[in-house]
Amino acid sequence: MGLHEVHTRSRFFFVRCFYELRTRKRMGKWLLPESLADILPAEARRIEELRRLLLDLYRTYGYELVMPPLVEYLDSLLSGSGGDLDLHTFKLVDQLSGRSLGIRADMTPQVMRIDAHLLNRAGVTRLCYYGSVLHTRPRGLWATREPLQIGAEIYGHAGPEADVEVMRLALESVARAGVADYRIDLSHLGVVRALLEADPAAAARADEIFGLLRDKDTPGLAALAPALRADTAAALQALPGLYGDADVIERARGLLPALPQIAAALDTLASLARALDVEVGIDLADVRSFHYHTGIVFAIYCDAWPNAVVRGGRYDDVGRDFGRARPATGFSLDLRELAGLLPPAVASSAVRAPWGTDPELAKAVDALRAAGQIVVQSLPGHEPDEQEYVCDRELVLRDGAWQVVLLAPAAPSSPH
Amino acid sequence: MGLHEVHTRSRFFFVRCFYELRTRKRMGKWLLPESLADILPAEARRIEELRRLLLDLYRTYGYELVMPPLVEYLDSLLSGSGGDLDLHTFKLVDQLSGRSLGIRADMTPQVMRIDAHLLNRAGVTRLCYYGSVLHTRPRGLWATREPLQIGAEIYGHAGPEADVEVMRLALESVARAGVADYRIDLSHLGVVRALLEADPAAAARADEIFGLLRDKDTPGLAALAPALRADTAAALQALPGLYGDADVIERARGLLPALPQIAAALDTLASLARALDVEVGIDLADVRSFHYHTGIVFAIYCDAWPNAVVRGGRYDDVGRDFGRARPATGFSLDLRELAGLLPPAVASSAVRAPWGTDPELAKAVDALRAAGQIVVQSLPGHEPDEQEYVCDRELVLRDGAWQVVLLAPAAPSSPH
Repeated sequence: MGLHEVHTRSRFFFVRCFYELRTRKRMGKWLLPESLADILPAEARRIEELRRLLLDLYRTYGYELVMPPLVEYLDSLLSGSGGDLDLHTFKLVDQLSGRSLGIRADMTPQVMRIDAHLLNRAGVTRLCYYGSVLHTRPRGLWATREPLQIGAEIYGHAGPEADVEVMRLALESVARAGVADYRIDLSHLGVVRALLEADPAAAARADEIFGLLRDKDTPGLAALAPALRADTAAALQALPGLYGDADVIERARGLLPALPQIAAALDTLASLARALDVEVGIDLADVRSFHYHTGIVFAIYCDAWPNAVVRGGRYDDVGRDFGRARPATGFSLDLRELAGLLPPAVASSAVRAPWGTDPELAKAVDALRAAGQIVVQSLPGHEPDEQEYVCDRELVLRDGAWQVVLLAPAAPSSPH
Repeated sequence: MGLHEVHTRSRFFFVRCFYELRTRKRMGKWLLPESLADILPAEARRIEELRRLLLDLYRTYGYELVMPPLVEYLDSLLSGSGGDLDLHTFKLVDQLSGRSLGIRADMTPQVMRIDAHLLNRAGVTRLCYYGSVLHTRPRGLWATREPLQIGAEIYGHAGPEADVEVMRLALESVARAGVADYRIDLSHLGVVRALLEADPAAAARADEIFGLLRDKDTPGLAALAPALRADTAAALQALPGLYGDADVIERARGLLPALPQIAAALDTLASLARALDVEVGIDLADVRSFHYHTGIVFAIYCDAWPNAVVRGGRYDDVGRDFGRARPATGFSLDLRELAGLLPPAVASSAVRAPWGTDPELAKAVDALRAAGQIVVQSLPGHEPDEQEYVCDRELVLRDGAWQVVLLAPAAPSSPH
């Protein structure tokens, strides 16, 4: 462990302690568990707006909404996910069946199950979804244990056109949400898989190699070299440097072995980079989701956040665990994280109305609400105490008719 | 157990077996746990539409949206709920703290916690919420273990005006959703509580008495009579018959002891019945939520469903467990149940578009989507196979421009 790392870790430790103490002070006895939080009105409305915006966007592309249950049998939830999801999944015992249940830590396997078994269609199926997922531990220092996952998937199409469509939709999601500076990075897991398949010594240490690549640990990869074939070792050590703009694809052709699967993966990357209207980054060592994804993978980053805002890619093999292997590609993102990147929602203006039994008052209130206006009726003895709605108008009886009049802004208190 | 009851139970048993077998056949190995289900596109869209309709309605009344977490410390989740919620709550161990967590079985205590501790306002606060809750066992033969709870609450106002507002809002929720025949039943837990307070022998058997009243078990109440004061016994036996239209209130004044709390409860019921624009039913033996509610309670029923569609009422004492007793009144309903009472959503019409690299095609597709049209692009080699969107139009290139044309309906297959 280097000095820099020690320094960083202790700083994070103190930041965390400060954050915890502040939270405890505010919440007293009714503290929530660590890395879980209530979403209060301004943030809740921002999230609800984003949720509608994105679900409506996916609808205009023909994606059908599905809602899988919060808990399922554990074996079904963990299908094809590898060990990573298992450790993050809360387990329960079902009183009715005695079997193990899991609270979903990811909705993608559930949506794939729905495509495979419930819809069971032969052609292309486009599905989208939204819901809370729960993690036993936060996936990072600032991460929540309850991401609000929203995503879209295409089943039944193996061609790059499906990948292009989901990537465009992912980019449009971020743009429509109002994120200012974002970029998309592409990778293809076929490159590393081809290197491992060509060298049995490398295949035997696959998990270790994926771990070193994920950490971009070039010294570690160099230390592994004597155990591998020379061309495999050279290629693995080259991968962390194969990062940059689309020119990286041509550089990779010179540095990596001329295996047909590698050439095909690089061709796919080049055609996808051309098909997207935006500038793309290439990061051939991005193997973070190797347990799950099988081909092209992508991530959308923005300046204000160190982690990817969106992750997606192709996972054609996963359906095999459900007894029905189908091509599959898609993406998902955490709405809570996305909302955090945007300025908070501004308070809405509202009309204050008195409480009363006059039928004309009721009519006036109903008409305003039917027109989408927020009307807050003052309950006798209390003024409304809402921070999310600011009453700038008032419904008053003037000349025998209920009328909306502007409220004068509160006068600043004067010492005179 | 009478013969009729045996007959009914065995019929339900066979119906349940048939339903289970049908489900198993359809789902094969990937059966979901009992009383949990995926929500497929047509139903999901109906639920999403209802969700937006109701949240928008609550917004026009000035209710602020909050989103509490799926899991919390168990003691916080079960505050003030009595034993009923405890048995229905799934328990977990928090790896981070070692403490017991619960998955929420009801969102109301969470929203009350938010009012009491996070918002901590002095005046009236109106909050609304939506989310999945989970039950260890279904609360009835056809009940789901994952209701989609939506609701609205007023904190900080003890007057009947707050009750009138939430009852009106509950009635408007059902009406706006499109439920055809519905009615509201009122009760007041102050009546039974006053009887128990006046007779220590009855207070000692409170749970038993609430159980007998809930089941409207008049013979059971009669059997209890020798243990109670004569006027208490007579009043308890009269309660199950005090059911009907608003005239029941005057009948109750003659049949129940002239205790001041009973007179006050009946006065409140009479004033609420007058304040609502609809005909109300009175059911003085409705004590189903006695663990939780403290005053007025109400339920909305409709012809097509044996259980209440909406339940609500006043629960002023509950906040004490959170260290901040505040007047509280509100209601909630299960959107999945509400959606089931309505005709299924009809498929939406969509435009089919080809896949291609023509920038003019992309522009035409974008323009249609921006106008809210659903455009399904045919991925090469596959026709879209969606049941939720029916393509009745197609985007075609004619005379050098992309145009939307009507698709001819598929010709019926002919024997000639």
